[in-house]
Amino acid sequence: MVKTSDKASVAALVSICYGQGLRRVIISPGSRNGPLSLSFKEHGGFDVQVIPDERAAAFMALGMSQFDKVPTILLCTSGSAVLNYAPAVAEAFYQRIPLLVISADRPKEWVDQLEGQTMLQNGVLKNFVNKEIDLPQEPSDEIGKRFHDRLVNEAIAACQYPVPAPVHLNVHLTEPLYGLTEANAEVRLIEEILVKKCLPDESLIKELLSDLKDHPRVILLMGMHSPDQALEKTLNGLSSKGWVIMNESSSNLRGDKIISCIDRCLEAIKTENEELLKPDLIISFGGPLVSKKIKQRFRKDPPKAHWHIDAHQPHIDMFQCLNKAIRVDPSLLLAALNEGLHEMKSEFQDHWLEISDRSIKNHFAFLEVASWSDMKAYSQILDALPSQARIQMANSAAVRYVQLYDHLRNQEFYANRGVSGIDGCNSTAVGMAHLSKEPVVLLTGDMAFRYDVNAFWSNQIPRGLKCIVVNNGGGGIFRIIPGPSASGHLEELFEAAMENSAEKVASLSGLPYLSAKNEVELESSLKELFADDATMVLEIFTPREENEKVLAAYFKALTS
Amino acid sequence: MVKTSDKASVAALVSICYGQGLRRVIISPGSRNGPLSLSFKEHGGFDVQVIPDERAAAFMALGMSQFDKVPTILLCTSGSAVLNYAPAVAEAFYQRIPLLVISADRPKEWVDQLEGQTMLQNGVLKNFVNKEIDLPQEPSDEIGKRFHDRLVNEAIAACQYPVPAPVHLNVHLTEPLYGLTEANAEVRLIEEILVKKCLPDESLIKELLSDLKDHPRVILLMGMHSPDQALEKTLNGLSSKGWVIMNESSSNLRGDKIISCIDRCLEAIKTENEELLKPDLIISFGGPLVSKKIKQRFRKDPPKAHWHIDAHQPHIDMFQCLNKAIRVDPSLLLAALNEGLHEMKSEFQDHWLEISDRSIKNHFAFLEVASWSDMKAYSQILDALPSQARIQMANSAAVRYVQLYDHLRNQEFYANRGVSGIDGCNSTAVGMAHLSKEPVVLLTGDMAFRYDVNAFWSNQIPRGLKCIVVNNGGGGIFRIIPGPSASGHLEELFEAAMENSAEKVASLSGLPYLSAKNEVELESSLKELFADDATMVLEIFTPREENEKVLAAYFKALTS
Repeated sequence: MVKTSDKASVAALVSICYGQGLRRVIISPGSRNGPLSLSFKEHGGFDVQVIPDERAAAFMALGMSQFDKVPTILLCTSGSAVLNYAPAVAEAFYQRIPLLVISADRPKEWVDQLEGQTMLQNGVLKNFVNKEIDLPQEPSDEIGKRFHDRLVNEAIAACQYPVPAPVHLNVHLTEPLYGLTEANAEVRLIEEILVKKCLPDESLIKELLSDLKDHPRVILLMGMHSPDQALEKTLNGLSSKGWVIMNESSSNLRGDKIISCIDRCLEAIKTENEELLKPDLIISFGGPLVSKKIKQRFRKDPPKAHWHIDAHQPHIDMFQCLNKAIRVDPSLLLAALNEGLHEMKSEFQDHWLEISDRSIKNHFAFLEVASWSDMKAYSQILDALPSQARIQMANSAAVRYVQLYDHLRNQEFYANRGVSGIDGCNSTAVGMAHLSKEPVVLLTGDMAFRYDVNAFWSNQIPRGLKCIVVNNGGGGIFRIIPGPSASGHLEELFEAAMENSAEKVASLSGLPYLSAKNEVELESSLKELFADDATMVLEIFTPREENEKVLAAYFKALTS
Repeated sequence: MVKTSDKASVAALVSICYGQGLRRVIISPGSRNGPLSLSFKEHGGFDVQVIPDERAAAFMALGMSQFDKVPTILLCTSGSAVLNYAPAVAEAFYQRIPLLVISADRPKEWVDQLEGQTMLQNGVLKNFVNKEIDLPQEPSDEIGKRFHDRLVNEAIAACQYPVPAPVHLNVHLTEPLYGLTEANAEVRLIEEILVKKCLPDESLIKELLSDLKDHPRVILLMGMHSPDQALEKTLNGLSSKGWVIMNESSSNLRGDKIISCIDRCLEAIKTENEELLKPDLIISFGGPLVSKKIKQRFRKDPPKAHWHIDAHQPHIDMFQCLNKAIRVDPSLLLAALNEGLHEMKSEFQDHWLEISDRSIKNHFAFLEVASWSDMKAYSQILDALPSQARIQMANSAAVRYVQLYDHLRNQEFYANRGVSGIDGCNSTAVGMAHLSKEPVVLLTGDMAFRYDVNAFWSNQIPRGLKCIVVNNGGGGIFRIIPGPSASGHLEELFEAAMENSAEKVASLSGLPYLSAKNEVELESSLKELFADDATMVLEIFTPREENEKVLAAYFKALTS
């Protein structure tokens, strides 16, 4: 016999979640959310995890839903608990990842009445959700119940529309909280029928193809994206039509003529090439871009035209010269344009590819002789990654370094670049490792690793997670971006230079630990790290002050 | 020569903060907030702390401003950073503690444009601030500058009006960020002239005194409060007029006839007394109350009348029988009532004090022979506390246990009972220890201590902080409140039973560590703990399953 809360609305909520295909719940312990915790657990159909720190729990949910695009349910108690979800909810919103946030609340009559664990919970996630619903309190008649059930159905559907994003359900619960009763199989499900992809019509394609004739030099620029074989084929097709295709590690689409290391390529440009490299048109799509250099380049010297393609929010005025905001699915539109275009040789493309080739040659020449540094360490790490690894790049030095190296076809790259916070990189990787059969590799720095120490505060740490911590003694990112180093307060105000021991973090959570402080040690510890599927921590010590010099020398070497 | 940002608005903001008397800034490192970080640091007049985890930083600020009621400035970078402030900001709001939250932001033209570390920051703290101001972006003319400076002045004043609370300033900053220039002494200050206390008029006093004649049996119930000698005198005066005065450790006002252990007293009531103990009127004031028992008692059997006194929000309908919401300063009103009343003997008061006396006698008799448990450990701890200690009680078992013991006159008790979250108890204590000359004692459990591990992630851990961690192997609170223990999932879903090692947390942060697992060891380790002003951790191991039995036996013994 399956049990459930004796509160009919709670029982219905849990059944509807299951009926709508949700299968994962991350619970942060509390009293007020007890009826929901018990019902999700007793149901038997959910994978239930218990994570005490709500901030970590939410980033873990993000990592799970980043993996399979299915909403993960987050469940917390009343009071400030739900506020700790906010950083991950904002990140999920900007990455377009669905999450169903359920916060328990006191009955409305006790809000703002000096009660314990009670605050005004409405609107606290408002900027970062598709929908927020304050569920009606304990409906007692049939109309109230059917209203309640419709709202729950609607909330789950809103996790996917207009684009995937978090949804917030606030549930007022009255004492006594813990009564259980026999579960009833009956549940009201509303199936949402949604035409997800609207085909662009013929006349639009015709118009755009005609416009493209006036803009022969095209750069197609893509940001963060999920792996997508059909789209990859389209991109490779478009590159045979003379387009220059640029993307990044986290675009997860590769091709011979796709320039996937934008910064490395831009740094290899010599001054004489500038005029030849200027596009008539930039077409952009996908999520956030890591490269600041490309934004700076085309903000300073904007192309004649910029089109951004997005079915939901096409007004992305990246270079302040946007002239077409194309509200349509990018894959469908690009496929149609690819079909309508003819193969052609393009000098414009040749120039770009020549520079890209030069950057690759110089890149390898430099690394051959580079001294021990972040740059060198990342090169060894990336060479050692399993061919099917899922790589989580932490903000912010890690994700920037990775952009300089080539990636293997079947590796997948993820990063919290929606809001680019340092706050939940570990937990996101933990969440993904719970689902991924392939190893998940977290590439991070000592600050980000220490920040999210509570990612490992759990009785259920998954296997297969490899945490690689490049310890350069503080916020190394501030040494490699211009400004802070010259300020005279670099170490105190920016790097927060401190001894962050990944070893102690590993010890706190009982994780096996390896370390390396030079090339030879790194070589062998990487072998050990990937020898089996044990979750472990590898800490790599690099010289704080040397790193920036090596990086500067690298950028200089790219033009040689 | 004092330097400051070459952005005139940033320079002005920093000067106005100083001119308005603010002296403390907690900075969480970032790039976008660089101009502000540099200007606060270069100014020379601010105590600048650098705390990488914004959640911990904000609770630390709360602990500082809880101590001296002066707003602490919190400064973070753009993106999710400010969201990590939310739990402490909500707590400060409900505790009425002033904070000035400054979040750096990208220029408006780059918000929601796929930029790094950028999100919609407006409104994210809306529920928990007196005011939110999005400062105008780089004012270039005189009108714009004067507008900007007025807004900054207004924001600082809003930290105190209508009641002390957080204020959120969002500051859009354009690159280049790090230019410095010579500071200019000129600054526009607006002095706010505020009549803080409005005297209640004669006719009101007269009316209330007349009402009191119809309600001879009065309970005066006070929640959280700061130490206040004048008010303490008033309360002692009112008790000589026959009133029953009840408060809690965190009320910080003591007196011979003040019942400061509400739950202990209520549990000592024998059934025959009930009718004699019924008040005609409850008058309440102050912040949140910990005791659930008193709320339950009078919700079940409400008095004829309930008055709540508060100058800002008097509609606190604690027993759902509120009939006067008195919008006036409680100290002034109570002093006036005290003056207008005559001394009298009250049987009602005698009955209550008799029960209270019985509870004290039974309390000591029980503890004399109690076996090793949370109950016993807290008794030893409270006996050992320095006579002037500032005690930070963590949520939630710690704060509940402390309510059962008597407190010394000059000790001060604090707890995050605004929202009662587990999330920042360590950091709040760290913040207070930065300012307090007296030792600060954190009384906490293993879950709360581990949750806020990043409280100690700092290069500037203060001296004089004594962390006492009662380790009962998980969320012990869920064993002592009814419900979860009977659910069949107590350990997994509620206690989150796990090995939380305070020793490893101490080691992560380089703090000296002591431990005790019985009465004898505790005796000697408490001596060692308070032997000097070193900050250290004392972990006390108590038997998880025994604790609830001892507590149940204790409550039973109170009536004997």
